[in-house]
Amino acid sequence: MIELSVDLGERSYPILIGSGLIDRCEPLRRLADARSVAVITNETVAPLYADRLQASLAGAAASIERVVLPDGEAYKTWPVLDRVFDALLAARFDRSSLVIALGGGVVGDMAGFAAAVYQRGIDFVQVPTTLLAQVDSSVGGKTGINHPKGKNMMGAFHQPRLVVADVDTLDTLPDRELSAGLAEVIKHGAIADTTYLDEVEAALPALRRREPAMLARIVAGSCRIKAGVVGRDERESGVRAILNFGHTFGHAIEAGLGFGQWLHGEAVGAGMVMAADLSRRLDLLTAADAIRVRELVRGAGLPVGGPAWPADIYIDLMSVDKKAERGSPRFVLLEALGRARVQKVPDEALRATLADCAEPV
Amino acid sequence: MIELSVDLGERSYPILIGSGLIDRCEPLRRLADARSVAVITNETVAPLYADRLQASLAGAAASIERVVLPDGEAYKTWPVLDRVFDALLAARFDRSSLVIALGGGVVGDMAGFAAAVYQRGIDFVQVPTTLLAQVDSSVGGKTGINHPKGKNMMGAFHQPRLVVADVDTLDTLPDRELSAGLAEVIKHGAIADTTYLDEVEAALPALRRREPAMLARIVAGSCRIKAGVVGRDERESGVRAILNFGHTFGHAIEAGLGFGQWLHGEAVGAGMVMAADLSRRLDLLTAADAIRVRELVRGAGLPVGGPAWPADIYIDLMSVDKKAERGSPRFVLLEALGRARVQKVPDEALRATLADCAEPV
Repeated sequence: MIELSVDLGERSYPILIGSGLIDRCEPLRRLADARSVAVITNETVAPLYADRLQASLAGAAASIERVVLPDGEAYKTWPVLDRVFDALLAARFDRSSLVIALGGGVVGDMAGFAAAVYQRGIDFVQVPTTLLAQVDSSVGGKTGINHPKGKNMMGAFHQPRLVVADVDTLDTLPDRELSAGLAEVIKHGAIADTTYLDEVEAALPALRRREPAMLARIVAGSCRIKAGVVGRDERESGVRAILNFGHTFGHAIEAGLGFGQWLHGEAVGAGMVMAADLSRRLDLLTAADAIRVRELVRGAGLPVGGPAWPADIYIDLMSVDKKAERGSPRFVLLEALGRARVQKVPDEALRATLADCAEPV
Repeated sequence: MIELSVDLGERSYPILIGSGLIDRCEPLRRLADARSVAVITNETVAPLYADRLQASLAGAAASIERVVLPDGEAYKTWPVLDRVFDALLAARFDRSSLVIALGGGVVGDMAGFAAAVYQRGIDFVQVPTTLLAQVDSSVGGKTGINHPKGKNMMGAFHQPRLVVADVDTLDTLPDRELSAGLAEVIKHGAIADTTYLDEVEAALPALRRREPAMLARIVAGSCRIKAGVVGRDERESGVRAILNFGHTFGHAIEAGLGFGQWLHGEAVGAGMVMAADLSRRLDLLTAADAIRVRELVRGAGLPVGGPAWPADIYIDLMSVDKKAERGSPRFVLLEALGRARVQKVPDEALRATLADCAEPV
């Protein structure tokens, strides 16, 4: 088992990465001890792992409720979240209760937001079961739900007390979801660490074959980068924004197609290719490096361009991006592989990228 | 103008209390400078004060949107709050935008919660226009919405950047709302300050006649007590819970009748009489002091008992109280006038209070 830490003063917490943690994880048992526990999961994950996770808490948790949500980004809405509140209230959950998010990024975002606002905030734990959630979304405390007009528009910064990533759960992950997770892995290398990017590039075939040792290594590598950035800027007043590389385009694709049509990681994959292309047009990134980003995304099995919409559609969708200022989006650009920055961009360059990087739907 | 401060480190903020502040308030203009501003208000308050408040920001705010919600506790729900998010997104509000809550406790709670979760948190200002909001709910950062089963069950601690209490707005307040505000004023004296309680008792007739100097004095007196408690315990891990004196019973009455049937302050008035009675039964408070609490509540024009429901109904409603532990409510009791504590109580004493303090509906 690998143990990392997110260092945020009194809100610091460990990330545990390893095999078999769904069935046995002492730190999780200790955290659940004598508390009412709600396992929030979805229809896909529940039959696979919920019984096992709950069995691992037997004799520790005072009681365990299970809340099973529908699966998919389309359900990351308040009416679905309200089912969690109904269940917590029906079971008389109080401020000492504990929420456990068991599933991918959508479950983690929703369960985390439920924990953030239930009785103005209770503890929660992330038990991510997708590659995307293990390498990225379970770490850092971003929680929220979607608005039809924009991704994660309502949410909270609410740090988990613990992250438990059992890499064995990646065995049951559909190929499409595995590729989606690789988007965030590539992102971490591209924005912060060329050595890591080289490693990811070399490992892509092994990762797509799900070699366990390589998956564990990459989950740890990505968590280390993410934890480092979050530790320096918990609430995204500065450097944390670089973790949105590919996300300004990606969120526009997700919202424009309707949430759930593309997986988040697929949209981010295409978005990174577009952001790299934009970086090249602004003479920040070499053409060779922009191509390398595209080929990494392609090599992960992800789309390398967004839907072929008129530029104005993209621009309207991006005007509500959370990094926007006065309706004008800011973009995470690469100054080089391994180094990112956030800035506004000239309209012509943006339109050129949108024209060149879109693919017929 | 009286200026107080809520001391919370980097989240500290001023409370300004005075006449004419709706029309002219330099600190508010400075805060709104060059920002997109949303004035969140309700159907009752908008025609009275929204134009004036917006005029006072002319030339400072970059743009001003107005969002008018229906009036009343029954509308403190997510579907109504969603109208705020729709409006903020339609107007391309970003993380630098500012929300102003113009109205009573419901508007303040909702606008504050909207600001807490919109794009994971933006700034907001409280401009309370009811006595209850000026003396209590606008200070301290508690925001939220109701669940049919429980008051303020979903919410956030999100401190305003500024509170602007224009006591002139109390001129237009219905008598029933004025009395509701006096409940929280009596509460502040009863839990924390007998000298203040004496002053409130003597001033009740003048307050009900709305003598401006007396209203300003009482708004300041109550804010000073509230700010002191909040400054010592922002997130209610300890002493702040005493501000819930009367609220465990009161929230049960509100939820049981359906939100909006009684005003919050009316339910708190009855709840304080019940909590004082319970304190007496547990030999904490003298019979004379319990009667004094009841007569203060009566003197404020408030109900002195809750609906005559069977005890089990009250007990079930109170089991989801946010101070509850394992489904068993904790109560704020008076050890003496001016001194409160929080504890569980024996079932018999609670049932005796419920039997004696309920009044035919």
